[in-house]
Amino acid sequence: MNTLGDVAIDTASLLRRLERLGAVGGLPGGGNARLALTDDDKAGRDLVVGWMRELGLDVGIDAVGNAVGLRAGLENTAPVMIGSHIDTVRTGGRYDGNLGVLAGLELVAALEKTGARTRRPIAVAFFTNEEGARFQPDMLGSLVYVGGMSVEDAYAARAIDGAILGAELERIGYRGAKPPGFIRPHAFIELHIEQGPILETEGLTIGAVTGVQGISWIEYVVSGVSNHAGTTPMRLRRDAGYAASAIATGIRDIVRRIGGDQIGTVGRIELVPNLINVIAARATFTVDLRNTDEMTLRRAETEIANLIAQICDAENVGVEKRVLARFEPAAFDPGIVDLVAARASMRGYPCRRMSSGAGHDAQMLARICPTGMIFVPSAKGLSHNIAEHTEPADIDAGAKVLLDVVVELAS
Amino acid sequence: MNTLGDVAIDTASLLRRLERLGAVGGLPGGGNARLALTDDDKAGRDLVVGWMRELGLDVGIDAVGNAVGLRAGLENTAPVMIGSHIDTVRTGGRYDGNLGVLAGLELVAALEKTGARTRRPIAVAFFTNEEGARFQPDMLGSLVYVGGMSVEDAYAARAIDGAILGAELERIGYRGAKPPGFIRPHAFIELHIEQGPILETEGLTIGAVTGVQGISWIEYVVSGVSNHAGTTPMRLRRDAGYAASAIATGIRDIVRRIGGDQIGTVGRIELVPNLINVIAARATFTVDLRNTDEMTLRRAETEIANLIAQICDAENVGVEKRVLARFEPAAFDPGIVDLVAARASMRGYPCRRMSSGAGHDAQMLARICPTGMIFVPSAKGLSHNIAEHTEPADIDAGAKVLLDVVVELAS
Repeated sequence: MNTLGDVAIDTASLLRRLERLGAVGGLPGGGNARLALTDDDKAGRDLVVGWMRELGLDVGIDAVGNAVGLRAGLENTAPVMIGSHIDTVRTGGRYDGNLGVLAGLELVAALEKTGARTRRPIAVAFFTNEEGARFQPDMLGSLVYVGGMSVEDAYAARAIDGAILGAELERIGYRGAKPPGFIRPHAFIELHIEQGPILETEGLTIGAVTGVQGISWIEYVVSGVSNHAGTTPMRLRRDAGYAASAIATGIRDIVRRIGGDQIGTVGRIELVPNLINVIAARATFTVDLRNTDEMTLRRAETEIANLIAQICDAENVGVEKRVLARFEPAAFDPGIVDLVAARASMRGYPCRRMSSGAGHDAQMLARICPTGMIFVPSAKGLSHNIAEHTEPADIDAGAKVLLDVVVELAS
Repeated sequence: MNTLGDVAIDTASLLRRLERLGAVGGLPGGGNARLALTDDDKAGRDLVVGWMRELGLDVGIDAVGNAVGLRAGLENTAPVMIGSHIDTVRTGGRYDGNLGVLAGLELVAALEKTGARTRRPIAVAFFTNEEGARFQPDMLGSLVYVGGMSVEDAYAARAIDGAILGAELERIGYRGAKPPGFIRPHAFIELHIEQGPILETEGLTIGAVTGVQGISWIEYVVSGVSNHAGTTPMRLRRDAGYAASAIATGIRDIVRRIGGDQIGTVGRIELVPNLINVIAARATFTVDLRNTDEMTLRRAETEIANLIAQICDAENVGVEKRVLARFEPAAFDPGIVDLVAARASMRGYPCRRMSSGAGHDAQMLARICPTGMIFVPSAKGLSHNIAEHTEPADIDAGAKVLLDVVVELAS
């Protein structure tokens, strides 16, 4: 048996896996669309589960479709888990989520190649519906895995296309037999692209992630009165489309005024009947707010709620809200953050500590075990975009730091 | 042969026709959807053309699907034409357009019943794609009929669902053999619901329409950069959705500041990819502006163009525009306006002169012959809404004034 010191990641193989998975649900011009529990997601899952089995992992699927592949250690104890997700947004890239899962598989492949065995078992997992682009909340699979949401509530989630999560799991054959949380990790580590511009701008290779921003997702439905756009005097209008636009505009003002790390986005707007010459009867739109500071995030929520009440009152339209996701900021394990930074330095990679702007499965796992994340740069800061890209050298660096950290945690 | 004085409209029969046509493409809760050249529009056309033939009219269909049914007069001369449209918006009512066509048929039925014959022939017409809810421009059929648009250009019009007008005409069997304008009217008269609140608010029964507002329809496409909503700092965003919202909000401000008769509507907004956690890469929206005064309408267009340039520049997004329709205000024939007002008074109906906020086929016909319109009230001013309603007594009044006016014009 060879020693762990001889284990080396085959980055060319990792890049090939990223390319093959990216071709599933591939989009013209690059990128891919594998919205959670669609046929394309099933095809992606089948590919990755197949690779897990080829690598000799013992694969278990839980009740909400989370998949965990287990490699035995020298001792039968709690494993070190590597994980992320393989669902994407509708115009997603090939690295977001996928990198963390496939780097885990490549790490297992490297161990297999030398026959090296860690003291603790190693698990590689992917979690269902991390993106939240089809079902809400986002990070649903990992949330259920750590006991933060019941399986029944998850099954009842309704997709933006009207489908029901439980039925979709059944349809694509990923309603597994295992109870969520069936493997409780000793530690959890997620390699992920930054999805922002900081590492690239500062010329760094590795981010040692200290925690994740708090997130607030709310859907609003404004109800006005549909009427003829050519005959209804301005003063008599109850225009749901105008109210939605004025709210989206005001949210930008509020977010800018709060400043600092506060960000806010209205990414989805739908009008009914959505015709050129008809005043909109209904407007549905979403508000995505994030901050590393919980109190500031609450202030933004309150100011926006006041703005919405004021605009809807002035336009004489009704409004209903539905909280789609709400997570407080999460902090990662200081020991693992230090370990990531130390191993990056030992490899000679320029590194900084940073918080994550995006939500990640790791923030859910942090509820049940010591957890950390490794970031690698995103070219031009682009993500959720078909032009999402990370340089092969950076993928190589991230996978190597992942290997070092996992070997240490599993020893 | 009976005299014209014995001719009486059977309003119960007119209401039954309105109900039967309204059931074609009927919507839950009332109203109907017969977007131009859809299967439902074909079914509505077949029903109305069937009725025309039952009444002994000689039906001709022109190259863009306009249908004209002709009843011979005592002399073989230019007919008095009654007309409107039978297409609807996606959430349309049963009176908009349909009333003018079916009242024309009921008028013919009344003449047939007594055997009375007018000196001039009488024609009843419906024109293709008046609403503009599927193809642009609106009033396309009547515009082609009067020579304001070529048949070739009309055939090339692309629907919001991607279909091509020429192919859709062929598909539903309404690309007729007659050249547009094949019957040149002596005069044109259109009975229509007001689609606004003025007659009801003032307790009046009949509007003698003096003209139609000018209309400006423009579609804008804003191009930004799609990116992750959680990781992209506010200052680095190029958010097409924000730009569209800020523009829609600013248009309301401009329209309010201009005041008077100026109205403006953003009824359609579509974001791409339209997801909660992705900054929109693209926003498509429409601007509908109307005014009875051409110079003021141009001022509104200019101020809005400046606003759009300023917002798109500040957000660093691109913008392209496409003019979908542009018609200057139209004035009706003073003699016919007087005739409508006089006949309403003789019947004892309270009446006022008023301009039309909506576009109508009559404004196109006004280019080739003396033209007028008769308005009846819309309950609560609602139109382009499934709750659109006009009281039977008002329909009765409108049909009687139509009869009196047509008999006079045809004598």
